[in-house]
Parts: sequence; structure tokens; C-alpha cells
Amino acid sequence: MEVKKNQIDDFNRDLITNHQMEFEFLSSKLNSRGVDVESIIRDMEELQIAIPSWALGAGGTRFGRFAQGGTPGNLQEKIKDVGLIHHLTHSAGKISLHIPWDIPENPTEIVALAKENALEFDAMNSNTFQDQEGQKLSYKLGSLSHVNSNVRQQAIDHNKKVIDYGCELGSKSLTVWLADGSNHPGQSNFRRALNNTFKSLESIYNHMPEDWSLYIEYKPFEPYFYSTVIPDWGTSFHLASSLGERAFTLVDLGHHLPNTNIEQIVSTLISAGKLGGFHFNDSKFADDDLTVGSIKPYQLFLIFNEIVQGMNDNVGGNPPIAYMIDASHNIKDPIVDLIQSLDSIGLSYIKSRIIDSKSLNDAQLKEDTVLASEIINDAFQTDVRSILREYRRRHGAPLDAVRFFEKNELRSQLIDERGRNNLTTGL
Amino acid sequence: MEVKKNQIDDFNRDLITNHQMEFEFLSSKLNSRGVDVESIIRDMEELQIAIPSWALGAGGTRFGRFAQGGTPGNLQEKIKDVGLIHHLTHSAGKISLHIPWDIPENPTEIVALAKENALEFDAMNSNTFQDQEGQKLSYKLGSLSHVNSNVRQQAIDHNKKVIDYGCELGSKSLTVWLADGSNHPGQSNFRRALNNTFKSLESIYNHMPEDWSLYIEYKPFEPYFYSTVIPDWGTSFHLASSLGERAFTLVDLGHHLPNTNIEQIVSTLISAGKLGGFHFNDSKFADDDLTVGSIKPYQLFLIFNEIVQGMNDNVGGNPPIAYMIDASHNIKDPIVDLIQSLDSIGLSYIKSRIIDSKSLNDAQLKEDTVLASEIINDAFQTDVRSILREYRRRHGAPLDAVRFFEKNELRSQLIDERGRNNLTTGL
Amino acid sequence: MEVKKNQIDDFNRDLITNHQMEFEFLSSKLNSRGVDVESIIRDMEELQIAIPSWALGAGGTRFGRFAQGGTPGNLQEKIKDVGLIHHLTHSAGKISLHIPWDIPENPTEIVALAKENALEFDAMNSNTFQDQEGQKLSYKLGSLSHVNSNVRQQAIDHNKKVIDYGCELGSKSLTVWLADGSNHPGQSNFRRALNNTFKSLESIYNHMPEDWSLYIEYKPFEPYFYSTVIPDWGTSFHLASSLGERAFTLVDLGHHLPNTNIEQIVSTLISAGKLGGFHFNDSKFADDDLTVGSIKPYQLFLIFNEIVQGMNDNVGGNPPIAYMIDASHNIKDPIVDLIQSLDSIGLSYIKSRIIDSKSLNDAQLKEDTVLASEIINDAFQTDVRSILREYRRRHGAPLDAVRFFEKNELRSQLIDERGRNNLTTGL
Amino acid sequence: MEVKKNQIDDFNRDLITNHQMEFEFLSSKLNSRGVDVESIIRDMEELQIAIPSWALGAGGTRFGRFAQGGTPGNLQEKIKDVGLIHHLTHSAGKISLHIPWDIPENPTEIVALAKENALEFDAMNSNTFQDQEGQKLSYKLGSLSHVNSNVRQQAIDHNKKVIDYGCELGSKSLTVWLADGSNHPGQSNFRRALNNTFKSLESIYNHMPEDWSLYIEYKPFEPYFYSTVIPDWGTSFHLASSLGERAFTLVDLGHHLPNTNIEQIVSTLISAGKLGGFHFNDSKFADDDLTVGSIKPYQLFLIFNEIVQGMNDNVGGNPPIAYMIDASHNIKDPIVDLIQSLDSIGLSYIKSRIIDSKSLNDAQLKEDTVLASEIINDAFQTDVRSILREYRRRHGAPLDAVRFFEKNELRSQLIDERGRNNLTTGL
Repeated sequence: MEVKKNQIDDFNRDLITNHQMEFEFLSSKLNSRGVDVESIIRDMEELQIAIPSWALGAGGTRFGRFAQGGTPGNLQEKIKDVGLIHHLTHSAGKISLHIPWDIPENPTEIVALAKENALEFDAMNSNTFQDQEGQKLSYKLGSLSHVNSNVRQQAIDHNKKVIDYGCELGSKSLTVWLADGSNHPGQSNFRRALNNTFKSLESIYNHMPEDWSLYIEYKPFEPYFYSTVIPDWGTSFHLASSLGERAFTLVDLGHHLPNTNIEQIVSTLISAGKLGGFHFNDSKFADDDLTVGSIKPYQLFLIFNEIVQGMNDNVGGNPPIAYMIDASHNIKDPIVDLIQSLDSIGLSYIKSRIIDSKSLNDAQLKEDTVLASEIINDAFQTDVRSILREYRRRHGAPLDAVRFFEKNELRSQLIDERGRNNLTTGL
Repeated sequence: MEVKKNQIDDFNRDLITNHQMEFEFLSSKLNSRGVDVESIIRDMEELQIAIPSWALGAGGTRFGRFAQGGTPGNLQEKIKDVGLIHHLTHSAGKISLHIPWDIPENPTEIVALAKENALEFDAMNSNTFQDQEGQKLSYKLGSLSHVNSNVRQQAIDHNKKVIDYGCELGSKSLTVWLADGSNHPGQSNFRRALNNTFKSLESIYNHMPEDWSLYIEYKPFEPYFYSTVIPDWGTSFHLASSLGERAFTLVDLGHHLPNTNIEQIVSTLISAGKLGGFHFNDSKFADDDLTVGSIKPYQLFLIFNEIVQGMNDNVGGNPPIAYMIDASHNIKDPIVDLIQSLDSIGLSYIKSRIIDSKSLNDAQLKEDTVLASEIINDAFQTDVRSILREYRRRHGAPLDAVRFFEKNELRSQLIDERGRNNLTTGL
Repeated sequence: MEVKKNQIDDFNRDLITNHQMEFEFLSSKLNSRGVDVESIIRDMEELQIAIPSWALGAGGTRFGRFAQGGTPGNLQEKIKDVGLIHHLTHSAGKISLHIPWDIPENPTEIVALAKENALEFDAMNSNTFQDQEGQKLSYKLGSLSHVNSNVRQQAIDHNKKVIDYGCELGSKSLTVWLADGSNHPGQSNFRRALNNTFKSLESIYNHMPEDWSLYIEYKPFEPYFYSTVIPDWGTSFHLASSLGERAFTLVDLGHHLPNTNIEQIVSTLISAGKLGGFHFNDSKFADDDLTVGSIKPYQLFLIFNEIVQGMNDNVGGNPPIAYMIDASHNIKDPIVDLIQSLDSIGLSYIKSRIIDSKSLNDAQLKEDTVLASEIINDAFQTDVRSILREYRRRHGAPLDAVRFFEKNELRSQLIDERGRNNLTTGL
Repeated sequence: MEVKKNQIDDFNRDLITNHQMEFEFLSSKLNSRGVDVESIIRDMEELQIAIPSWALGAGGTRFGRFAQGGTPGNLQEKIKDVGLIHHLTHSAGKISLHIPWDIPENPTEIVALAKENALEFDAMNSNTFQDQEGQKLSYKLGSLSHVNSNVRQQAIDHNKKVIDYGCELGSKSLTVWLADGSNHPGQSNFRRALNNTFKSLESIYNHMPEDWSLYIEYKPFEPYFYSTVIPDWGTSFHLASSLGERAFTLVDLGHHLPNTNIEQIVSTLISAGKLGGFHFNDSKFADDDLTVGSIKPYQLFLIFNEIVQGMNDNVGGNPPIAYMIDASHNIKDPIVDLIQSLDSIGLSYIKSRIIDSKSLNDAQLKEDTVLASEIINDAFQTDVRSILREYRRRHGAPLDAVRFFEKNELRSQLIDERGRNNLTTGL
């Protein structure tokens, strides 16, 4: 399936007049307030969000999964799906592979296909939370933290292999989501598990080429329900600090206890030079993995505010942040859901960019809480969709990617190509 | 596999002296305080906890499942597993079937087998949260609450069929866990969904024989993550009240928001005459479905306190409560895990029975908060395990069912019988 | 202190050109989509939010309070503050009194003063959570739920007196926030406490004139920390249903457990015809009582969506909803903070009104989840501030009430009038 | 008021026979399993829990406070209350002062009085969360983290002064609970606030004598409700690590988000050699400050398990842990409430000591989850009250301190001495 330039042009034709009016109205208003709209649009090219290879199929829960037709049956088709998303948004220029779900059997071909789709390979992802067909030792009671050194070694070797795969593709980083944990008080000795984990990570860290980075996720629960080995940013930070300069913390928005102030964690990690990456999604109750920004859009905006202000004043020396969407598409079409997530990210980024940061800083220093909150709110209330559209337009993308996808019945075409009941590896 | 009487006798022989010493020491102490230990032991025969047919295999999460060998491959084997658990505890004299996972193809034979195992059929459970092979319409966007009346009718018909199956087995109740909900603001009109649900339940209610009861579960989230149609006891209560006298609320301990005072909900439902049943499990974060009493044993004790005091003074006219264990056995052997849950339930019940309720009532009326809390705590601190053992002993069960199961390597026998990789239907 | 018409005119002069441009741009866009902007502006006159008499002073926590100067020293000054807020927003045309903090010693005079300030008297609020100077019996262990019937009677009598005060002022409702609860397991018998509460409320209900309504709040914790007598909407609903047609549930946004889907509760109460009123505020952790919409603006919008759609289709027969702001002004100037809250409420209301509800309904019926979420999001992303400004402008209010208050140094004037350290009754 | 030896002897006489029977029964059972009961009793002398000087009066909430008679009117009386508690439990041999509520005007006299009561001075506590009479600059918008360097200096100076007071009394540590935070997004720049805090703490750290330690608390919310400067253990740990070897994290059990696994945090801090101290209390919802062990006794036991196992194997080099009770006595008599808390702590400690740690370790290494959980549960189910009583008895304390206090009407005597309405400084 291919999207032709003229399809997009045709689609945009109907919307362009309204769009231009809105964009001009807004940009003139913002420019008059000292906001440089053009620089925002320019900088958006840098905001490329990786799509994980396991997110193109139907997601599910332990209670089941509802089929979605036309989803990709192999890595090649996954790359094409990401390529399509990028083509429609110019914001998804990266793909993040999960091993063993998406082993690049023929790396040269895979690299070429990615290039064709204007995609780079973002962080590699390892999997030591499932037992694979033919695997010698089980991860039921842990992997990198396991009491048995043979199990640990097996998990370490897997991670090293993932790095090796990544090297062939041009990836420069490994994300470790260590799902290890315990379900029952007494099952695990926390201190031993943490110590084992540190040593295992050390071995993996040392296997990385010198230009690679290690991102360490944290998560308070699931798939284990009494404890996890790396439950919070503090533990990830402690491990990353002990490992070395190229180890960082990765923040997944769904991996926090109720009521956590996530934007403050982001700020602290930036202060300490240890923010490595993000997994975007949204949630109301647990790790719900919903469309980014669909439940707590204000929180997403405040997080981007910390990113923008913090990286502008990057005294801690953080590397460029690795962004990825990590959501589960249980109900909506995966491609559409990902586009909606990209829309949310784009809008939150733009809103955080139009914050009058100089006035905000002055208000804070003058202890003017009322003014400070008015400045933040002013940016959030502003309708910045025309800036996102303009960015897309300038890069040849449709002004409304969701409607374009649906109007052109792209999923039907994919179903025709791939069938209605093919299997997509992933969660 | 069969457990012989002499196996149990042999096992108990080593433990009996210590047991008797402890039991006599405790019962003499309690009797001297006016606690009638014998009546507690007698009443424990009434405390029969149903085991669900879907709990005998390995549980899992959306991230996977780790195999456990020797689990039952059909309903007959499931009944035998429950029979074994009952044989070892004399507390699991009921089995609760889930349709379509455990359709009783030959009811007469199934009833006979259950009888052989001293089991009765507790509440029937319907399933409209998964699409089954060959199902006409999908439950992806709901079942009893669906916007499409054909989907609703299909789900209603399924529930009616489950009632019919139950009639053949001698069950007297239907439990509806309605998983319907939404993931995205706007997806569902809450008022319409609630109204549709009421009408669907009404149709099911009317299909029940006159001596049947309907139990309505509630759950705040999972498998949907923005809303569920029956999120809390208030909604279940509202529906049950509107349906009629034989509709009740069912409390699953894992189906509450963080920090909920569950014991108070139990008390309120008893006050209103609308407490139908319990699904026991334990959790730290979400619906973790862990071993009963393994995380919050004090809460379990306080819940039993409400049950015991409330049902003693049953002005609301609640029917006998339907108890079931609803846990997920992701790590531990399912049979052992269920025995541990039964142990917890037994101990909590006994502790709640030795509360000096007359003195507690006096202390409350005299506004003596210190004394009231001391009375509650006194019961909880007491080690009542010897009373549970004595109950088991008198019914020919082992003094320590977990150790008995492990020492006699019963799981190995089951693996020999059934194989290591057989499939068990359920979650 | 008085705000003159020409002050407002002067202030608006600078902003009017921009405002008109924005308003015209937006309303033309909305009108072209079938949104009747004029009818929204008209209906906003009905959206009058009561200001509680205890919210005009500095709020605090158990750890202390930081003084704010110029706050009102008596009921008369409180009325003037509310009058000022109403004058600046045309959205606060009601005041809600708390007894005994604001006993109207001379009702005729108070009524006249309110009228002068264009204010009506909203629900009366009773207080049985504190011991007042000279009070015979203590509420330490409860009031309407107390084990001692004399304490209950004292609390009942207080509520009756509050109704009597309200009658003199023209109020038509009583809000009962029953703070009763317990701190220690065993302290209270839940069933007795609930039953006592019902009987006490019944006596109060029967004292109300026939055109009065009773609003029953719920709250899961604070000032008691193990249980509260009316912890959730289910309990309030159960009590209100049992009491009669003129008893309703009141929703305070801060009175929920973590992650509660409040908009669904609102919808269910509307379905059942039992939604009485709202106490608006916002919170991140507990009953934080922050500025309305300052933490979870999207939730506020979704709540208004339920209100607007639900009351449009009011089959349950709910009375007009009683709205009040119930926040605590610990840091910001109370008047400014209240204006910010009114802004948030106004914007959320307007956004909920521009939802394309017909298309939303169609999308739901066609099971088009993507479109449904796009419709909701479209309304939320729209910058509707110019509609709020236009409403204010047409009623002679400043286009930006916060800036007007600050630019004209109204607080300084109040400090000059009232002093810097005067005491304001309330929390 | 003085408690005479013969009062205690008389009291114990009635209980001694039963006690001895129970103690002998239990210790013989435990000894036969290899538990050295005598060494537990010996080690309990080391488990001295500090009582804070601000905990002897009635606690309250922002909604009010209910008076309790006979509470101490000055520091001398507070010391006597703690002395009494220690006399009745032999577990409260320390007092922790709060400045400025309890400034030791005459240190020599205060030291002598403490000695007379067998008390040592534990950590000193500073207060920069309230504005004191005559204070130059306000802490409304922060203290050690404030944007204004003069406010920071004032707060630093206060802490230094608290250290100086402590030196005069023989204290060896300072606990900083930094309440600073923000209520409104935008109010505070998180990175600046953290950086200011670090520099302020550095200045305080450098003022401490070389044998002093600094304990840094963390708390997610209250008295600020959007952010706090040190919200979690990770931030405290980061600060303590950066400050130096004598800075540690202090864990207050009430200062966590819902569902936090606190025992794991304790374990991680011990691993890292950074656990300084504990503030004990219990809670169900927020920082409820209830009687220790009254809501989650199992959690308390699991925490003590981590302490006992972790400090036995103290490779991180943690100093002896500073224990304190930090609860609020809103309903119960403060002295009785504190005794109940000490009882809970004692029982949890004893239970954690009788865990068969060798078998537990073996079970963990053999991946026997069932056995591991049985071992933990066995210790928790054991009724160890007779060991606590025996410890008390050997030190001349009553066998039941709560009943002794009440039976001898000690509060009445204190009321006679001090009056019914005297004011006690503190929260």
C-alpha cells in the first residue's frame, strides 16, 4: 500500500483555506507577544517519536484480546506501518525493535527498508519477562535479579545479543525494562535482588559500544504484584549513577503510583543529568497504556514544560532525549491510535514552547503566584492546532492525518493486502 | 490420584502431640474468657468456600504466563482437584463453574462426580468479556450495555443459557461480572450504557427460577481503563435494588480503588440486606488476585468481623453469603495457593469469632475508644491456628494441608497422570 | 471600597480591539459548524456559582496558616467581597452561609445588603464537626451518628436552627457535610452509626419547609482517618433515596479516592434524578481544595459534559443544580483565587457546550470510537476564552477580572479599609 | 505525679500467673525451634523509641481539635510525660525536641530532669513551615528552597540554632522535615528549588559538629498540594548522597503515595548505607498519623523484617537507626496512644526476630516460594505478647501498661495537677 502525493494534496485542498486563516490569526497573535512561531515549527523536526515494533497489532489484557484486521505479519510490514505513520505526520521517524519478537534476520535488507521509509533505529528492547520456545531456564522467578546465576547469565547474554542486533541496525542504545519482582512477601530478598541486578546490568553496560547508552525503566507493579526490583525513579537513578556516565533513567508515564507528580521527577532527572528517555502513554488507574494525552492532557503539557525549560538550561549535560510511544491499542485501530498520540505530543510540545518563560521566571522571582499560574494557563488554553497542521503541511503531510487515514480507507487496503486474521507479534 | 486415609493418619501422627498441647492451652484460655471454642469449630462446617473451575491452572498477566505441570485438562479433572482441596481442608465443599470454559456436556455424570467428591455447585459464572470461536457478534465494545441491541440480546441469551446449565447441576445462583466499559472519553454514553445494562439484567433476572439469586459484581477498571459500567458498590446496589428481592451485590476484594474501606462497604450492604457474596483474594496495587490474606491480613479480619457481627444481627434479611476464592496462581502451585487462601480465610473467621463482641459493644456505647481498639487487637494478636487444625483433624484432614501436599508429592503424581504441558481453560 | 463603571470601561478599552477580533473569529468559526454561540452566552447567566461565606479569608492546614491582609471581619464584609467578585465576573450571584461562623444577627439588614450586591442566598451549611464555645456536648466522637442520643439531638437541633436562619434569608436548601467518622478499627459500629445518621437526617428533613431541598455530601476521609459515616456517593444516594424526594446527593470534587471517575458518578446521579449540587475545587492528592480546574482541567470539562448532556435530557427529574466553589486559599489572594476558579468553570462550561453532541451520539451509535474521541477532543482544544470575555463584557464586567483586580490594587484598598491582621471566621 | 514500685507490683500480681504460663509455653516452643528468646529480650533494651515533645497534647486537623485535659504546659512536664511512658514500657528512653515549640531555656536543668527520667535527647527538629511571632520574613512560599536568599538564610540560621540547642542537651543529630512546596503549577521552578535546597542543607550540614548526623525526611504532599521539594526517598537519597557521609534519609511511614512498598524502600536504603531513622505512625489514606500498627500491622512487621535482616548484614555501614513515633492523638489520650504504639512496635520487632531467617534464605535460594511465604506467615501468626510482657516485667514495668494507666487513673491525676484546659504547644 502506498500513499501518493496527490492523495494528500487532494485531501488538503479542502482544508487549506481554513487552516491558513487560523494559522495566520494565531501566529500573528503569538508573534506580537514575542513568540517565534517559525522557530517552533523548525524545532519540531527534532521531535521525532519512536514507534515500537510491537505496537502495530491489537493490544489486549489478561482477559483477552479483540482481533483487528490488516495488522503486520512480520518486521517488514511493521516498518512499513511506521513508515506510513511518519509519512502522515513527519513526527515518527524512528522505530524501536523488540527482541525476540522482531529479530532482524537479514539486517542489511531491514536497514534498507527502514531508510526507504525515512526511519532510523531507536533504542533496542530486550525481553526477559517471558519464556520463549526452547529457552533453557525459566524467568518465572526473575531474570537479571534471579537467585540462580545461570538464569542471570542467560538473561545477560540475551541483552548482549540484543545489543549486537542493534549494532547491525545502527541503533545506539538499549532500553532495559526489567520486569523482575515478587508476588509474595518472603519470596525475594530485596537486597540480594537489587545487588544481583546491579551486577547483571554492569555486565550488559560493559558490553555496549562506547557510543551507546543504557536506559533503565522503572515500574511499581505488573507483571509482579508485591514488589518489583526497580519500582521507582530513585532505584533506577541509583543504579544508573552507579553504572556510569552512559546509563540513564527512562520515564514511562504509566509506571507510577497514584497521584505521582511526574513532571517533578522529569525535572529532577534533568537537574541530575540522568534523563535518558520517555515512553509515552496515558492512564487513569494503573499502567493502562492508553492514547497519549487522552486522560491527563494537562499533565503531559506540564511534563513538556519541564523538558523544554530544563533542556534549554541543560547544566546537567543530559543527552538528547529518546522519545517513544508505548501504548496498547485494545479498541482503536493501532495506526490511528498512534497518530492521535503523536497529535497530543505535538500539541503539548507546542503549548510548552509558547509559555512566556521569561515572564514566568520573573513572576517566580517576584513571588507572584497568581501571575505565574496565569502564564502557564494562558499557554495551555491556547488552541495551537494550526501550528501542528502547518508543520505537517510544510512536510507534505495531510492537515488531519486521522481523517486522511479514514477517508482513504487505508486500513481496508491493509486488510486486503494482509488479511483479516493474521497474527502480529507483540503484547 | 487418591489420598488414602492412612496417608493422612501417618502425616498427622508426627504433629498431633504438639497440636493437642497447643489446642488445649488455647481453648482453655479462651473458654475461661467466655469464648465457646466448640461452637466455633461447629460453625466452621458452614464456612464452605467455593473454588472456581478456572482457578486450577496457571494464572498469568498480559505479559505472559509461566507453565505449571499437571493442571487439569477438563472439567472432570477440575472437579477432582477441588475435591482434593476439600478433602485436605474440609472447607472447599463447593465448585463454581464458568461458561463457556467449563460447559457440563454430560450433566448427570458431572453431578455424580461432584457428589463423589462431596461438592455442591455454587454460583454459575457467565462470560461476555471475550469473543469465543464462532461467536456472531463481538463484545469488543460491550455486551449487556452495548449500543447495539443484537449484541445485548446475544449476551442476554448467553446468561440465560448459563442459568439453564446451572439448573441441571443444582446451582441456585448466577454471578454476573460485567466487564463492559470504555477506554476513551466520549466512547460511551454513561447514562445509556447504565440503562441498557439495567434492562439486560432485568431480562436475565426474569429468566431465573424462583429459588435463584443474582449476584452483581462491580469493578472500577480492567479490562477497560477509562470507565466500567458497574464501577462501584453504589452502582451494583442501585441496580440490585431496582431489579428486585433476589438481586444482590457481590464484593470482590480486588475490585476497589486505592485505600477503600472495604469492611465498611460490607457492613453497609448487610445493613441494607443486599450482600450476596464474596470473591476472596488480596492485592497491593490493583486487581492483583494474590493469595487471600497474604498482603492485608488485618483487613481480611476486619471484614470477617463485619460479616460475623452483621449476620448475627441480620435485620436486613441477607441470605447466606456465597463465598468464593477468586485468585490468580501465577507463581505458586494452584492447589497449594488455594489451600493457603483457605487457611487465611479460616484463621480470619476464627479470629473474628473470638472478638469479645459484648465488651466491644459496651466500650463503644461508653465511648471508650481505647478499650474498643484493645478488644479488636486482642483477637487479632491471638494465635488461633490450633483451632483451625483441630477443625481439620476432626474431619479427617491433615493438620497442615500445605505440608501434606508437598511431602506426599501430590503434584508429581498429577503430572504423571496428566502430563507437564496440558492446557487448562480459564484465565 | 467600590468599583466604578468607568474604571472597568477604562480597563476594557485597552483590550477590547483584540477581544473583538478573537471573539468574531471564533464565533464565526463555531457558528459555521452549527454551534449557537449566542445561546451559550445567554445560558451563562443561569450558571451562577455560590461563594461560601467562609472562603474569603486565608485558608490553612493543620500545620498552620499564613496571614493575608484585608480579609473580611464580619458577614457584611463577606457579602461585599462576594458582591465584588460577582461584579467582576457576573458569575457569582449567590452566597452560601455557614452557621455558626456567619450567623445573620439582623436578617433584614443582611438580606438588604445581599440584594444591593445582586446576591441570592444559596444552600445553608451546618457545622457539627467542631465544638463551639459553650457547647454542652462534644462532637469529638460524632454528631448525627453519635452513640449518645443527647449528642445526636444537639446536632439535629443545630441543623434545624440553620434551616430557620435560612428561612429568614430566603435560602431554599440545607447542605449537610457530616464529618462524623472513626480513627480506629473497633471505635465505631458502622451499622449503628449509619442507622443513627439516617434517623437524625430524617428528623432534619422533616423540619424543612416543603420547598426546601436537602443536599448530602460524602467524603472518604478527613477529619477522621479510618472511616467516615458517609464515605461515598453510594452511601449518600442510599440515604437520600430513603429520605425522600427532596433529598439529593452533593458532589464535592475533592471528596473521592484516588483515580475515581467522577464524571461517571455525576452521570449516574443524573440518571437517577438524585444530583443536588456541586462543590468545586481541584486536587492532586487528597481533599487539597485547590483552585478549580488548576490540576485536572480535562476532568472538569468531562464533568461539565455530563452535566450539560444529562440535564438536557433530564428524564430523572433533577432540580436545577446548586453550584458552589469550596476551595481553600492558602497562598493566593482569596478573591483572585475565586475569580480564577470562576474562569475555569466558565471555560469548562463553554467547552462542554460546543461539543457537537449530535455527531457524538451518532459516532457512539455507529461504534466509531475514533470519531467520538476526536469530537470530545476538538471541543477541549478550542480556545474559548473570548466567549467568556464576551459574556463578561456584555454584563459590564472587565475583560480580565484577575488583571483588573490587581491593576487597580483592590486588595490594597481593602487592607486600608479593614487592616492587615483582622480575623476572618472560617477554616 | 509519681508511679510507685508497689503500684506496679500490685498490678502485676493479678496477671503474673497467666503471664508466666503463657511465656513459658511460648518460649519453650520457640526455643525448641532454635529461636533464642533470651537474646531477643536482651536486644529489646536497644530498641528505644524516641517520643517527640510535640506529641503529648491533643492533635487535630485543619477542621479543629478536641481538647484533652491534663496535657503538659511546658517542656518540663513534657519530659515527665515521656518519663512516665518510659517507666511503664522501658521502650521510650529518648525524647526528641522541636524548636521553637520547646526551647530549652535552662539546658542544665532540662538535662538533669531528663536524666532523672532516664531519658536521652534524640534528634533535634527544626521548624520552617510556620511563621513565628516576630519573625522577619515569611515562609509562606518556602524556606530552605525559597527564591529569596534572605528567607533561605533565615531558615538556615534557624537550623543552625537548633543544632546549637541540641549540643547543649547532648543530642547528636538534626532531623529536617522540609515542608517547602507549591500549590500551583508554575508557582515554583522545580530545578531552582532543589538546587537552593541543596545549598541550604550544605550550609546546615557544615555547621554540625563532627559526631552529628543529618536526617532528611521526604513527603509527597501536605502542607503543599501540588509539589513538595523533597517528595520521595529518591530525592532525599540524592540530597543525602551529595551532602556527605553523615547525611541520611529518614522514613516517615505516613509520607508515601498510595500502595507504596515501604519495606522495599527500607531495604534499598540499608543496602546503600543511607537509612538514618524512622518516624512511626500508621495511615489508611494520607499522612493520617494514627497509632502505629493500628491499620497495617503486617506492613509494620515486614518493615521490621527488613530492618532486622538488613542491619544483621550491614554491609552498607548504616549507623544505628534513630526511631521515633510521630503520630497525632486526635481522639485517644496521648499517653495511652503512645503506649499502644510502643506495644505495636515491640510486637512487630519480636515477630521479625522469630522469623526462621536461615530457612527463609534457603527457601529463597531453592526457589521455594511456598515455603518462603509459610515461614514469613508463621512468625506473623505467632502470638508473641508474652515476650513483650516478660521484657517489661524484667524491667519493673507493668505487664499491661495501658490497663495500668487507666486502672490507676493516671490521667485524672494529671488533670488535677495541670488543669483541664491548659495549652500544649505542638501541632
